Amino acid sequence: MASTPEEIAKQAIELHRKHRGKLSIVSRMPLNTAEDLSLAYTPGVGHVSSAVAANPELSYELTGRGRTVAVISDGSAVLGLGNLGPLGAMPVMEGKCVLFKELGGVDAIPLVLDTQDSDEIVMIVKNLAPSFGGINLEDISAPRCFDIEDRLQDIGIPVFHDDQHGTAIVTMAAVTNALRVVGKSIDQVKVVFSGAGAAGIACAQMLIKAGVRDMILVDSKGSIYDGREDLTHAKRDIAKVTNQEGVTGDVHVAIEGADVFVGLSGPDLLDRTDIAKMAKDAVVLAMANPTPEILPDEAKAGGAAVVGTGRSDFPNQVNNVLAFPGVFKGAMESRAPRVTAEMQLAAALALANLVKGPTAENILPNALDKTVAPAIAAAVSKAYADHGA
Amino acid sequence: MASTPEEIAKQAIELHRKHRGKLSIVSRMPLNTAEDLSLAYTPGVGHVSSAVAANPELSYELTGRGRTVAVISDGSAVLGLGNLGPLGAMPVMEGKCVLFKELGGVDAIPLVLDTQDSDEIVMIVKNLAPSFGGINLEDISAPRCFDIEDRLQDIGIPVFHDDQHGTAIVTMAAVTNALRVVGKSIDQVKVVFSGAGAAGIACAQMLIKAGVRDMILVDSKGSIYDGREDLTHAKRDIAKVTNQEGVTGDVHVAIEGADVFVGLSGPDLLDRTDIAKMAKDAVVLAMANPTPEILPDEAKAGGAAVVGTGRSDFPNQVNNVLAFPGVFKGAMESRAPRVTAEMQLAAALALANLVKGPTAENILPNALDKTVAPAIAAAVSKAYADHGA
Repeated sequence: MASTPEEIAKQAIELHRKHRGKLSIVSRMPLNTAEDLSLAYTPGVGHVSSAVAANPELSYELTGRGRTVAVISDGSAVLGLGNLGPLGAMPVMEGKCVLFKELGGVDAIPLVLDTQDSDEIVMIVKNLAPSFGGINLEDISAPRCFDIEDRLQDIGIPVFHDDQHGTAIVTMAAVTNALRVVGKSIDQVKVVFSGAGAAGIACAQMLIKAGVRDMILVDSKGSIYDGREDLTHAKRDIAKVTNQEGVTGDVHVAIEGADVFVGLSGPDLLDRTDIAKMAKDAVVLAMANPTPEILPDEAKAGGAAVVGTGRSDFPNQVNNVLAFPGVFKGAMESRAPRVTAEMQLAAALALANLVKGPTAENILPNALDKTVAPAIAAAVSKAYADHGA
Repeated sequence: MASTPEEIAKQAIELHRKHRGKLSIVSRMPLNTAEDLSLAYTPGVGHVSSAVAANPELSYELTGRGRTVAVISDGSAVLGLGNLGPLGAMPVMEGKCVLFKELGGVDAIPLVLDTQDSDEIVMIVKNLAPSFGGINLEDISAPRCFDIEDRLQDIGIPVFHDDQHGTAIVTMAAVTNALRVVGKSIDQVKVVFSGAGAAGIACAQMLIKAGVRDMILVDSKGSIYDGREDLTHAKRDIAKVTNQEGVTGDVHVAIEGADVFVGLSGPDLLDRTDIAKMAKDAVVLAMANPTPEILPDEAKAGGAAVVGTGRSDFPNQVNNVLAFPGVFKGAMESRAPRVTAEMQLAAALALANLVKGPTAENILPNALDKTVAPAIAAAVSKAYADHGA
């Protein structure tokens, strides 16, 4: 197995060159005879088109719409690599589409856009809606992603920015099981975030919804508090419900006494002395990619009881792939018009509950575990049935 | 085999319901192990994304872009059924995508748009370009289709409204071989069109480019002549180079003495007495769907030597499916930035030349003949190499 970054880069590029991308389109119908042609295409297809035009509901039965997601990005925030633009985003979007199919059985199509204008993106996605059963927005930079997603919540199909909510669901599941391991209750813990971008804000919102009462978010300029100047709209909102004591200073200050650290920022931020300042049996989720805020051995040397990262080569990989295939599978199967906070929290708890008897080295299922998506889909469908959307 | 329209409708709807649409997305890469995941997705894919962002040309080597077409419609002119809107258009677009793959080996994705505003369509298609190697516009009503297509000719990838140019290529091939059968030269024949919509105008332009000098187009208001009021921009342009004698009246007048009738209008327009007014050894291509302008037996009773229709249940089916898979395959393989008139004419002649020794009952290859697309692709590539774009 490739182990150095150079080897992984070489192998990945060779594999992509060999296959010329990662997706193919295949026909679900035979096309060998004139009769096949007359049914899949003219004249038979005309009757199908007329039927769908007369009754739009039939688009979910007679076309692929209801089982197909668009994975849409403007390339403005690709992985941790920044603004690579649409062409640079495409390999990631193709990868997500592969995962949608392999893990969730959901057909997914990658679309990268040659615009980073929010109004244009909203208009494009809205007008693409008849082609799809759901829209997975991906790698759109904050704070634009909040506005774009908000404006697309009423187009009749789920629109879900995975960098925000997928990350939040998996983080919430990781926190849930990590607290089970250390025997703490979610309404009693102090949580500190490093990173208040798209993912950080969404994770914070979900943890608050799940019961966390003591939380500080830290961005590149220090702790976020109500009244700090220079805050974006989203940060102002979260400041109102976090950091009630008005703590200032950087993450090395904020982390004092914390039970949980959630890192969604950048590499090599903390060392063992920071972890030593945390509460007993601390939980450290250091999810910056590819280099976490602190490596697991260093965190453990500081006294952390449970450590997770975004990487597959350490225990407790906190990876969005555990969430998005099942979330869309469930939302689309239940024909929910959007994915609500209740549905997301239900997804997170279902994911956590898949691990029977979590331990310090095993708080989440394996990223390729094919039982995950169906379980999450069922929880999402149930949440929609129970609470609506 | 289903024979009545009712039987075809029932079978087509049942088949679409059973398969829930006609396309699936599949992975070209394995995804069974953590290593597979590390190469197809993070962290490996980050290196691929960085490489493509640094060198946009690599988008054709490391992603599926260069082998993938978007089939885009606003549903404003679906088959002969009219303005069915995007949902009603989807079954046809899925059908085209199946044909792209099965006949041309081209991956194709159906996108139907919830707008019929030309400016919005142009903006959407332009911004989708980084995702694709070509854009097949489909079933967009005239005269909007002319403007939309024109404004998209410089986006760097081929944009081709198949209702216009696909029809023109196949019609040109049919005329070429029909004239071989009757032993007439293209620069000596009189051609009469019924229908001056998107397809009619494009066919007329190609026949003129191929050498036709005597031509009349007839629309629902009668023969088109220079100076007729009520003409759209496209019809005014074609009026300048056709109907030099200023013939007025309806198609029953215009058809007098014609060597070739091209019908792209509606059902049951002509009878045997009209055909009897044509020149000796007349060619009748009556392509209205599903009911042609005149049925083959009636045309023959009037003296027609060669008769073609759009239907698979008569000889000489003139069907776009003979053109578009090969045209895009060739344009994309040669990385042409657009599909020029030269490339289209080359495609038409290559298609005609595939029939060795054409006869009255055999002027075109079978619609499912898999040798067609590669031959057209080669001709398109050669025309691009010879003449540029």
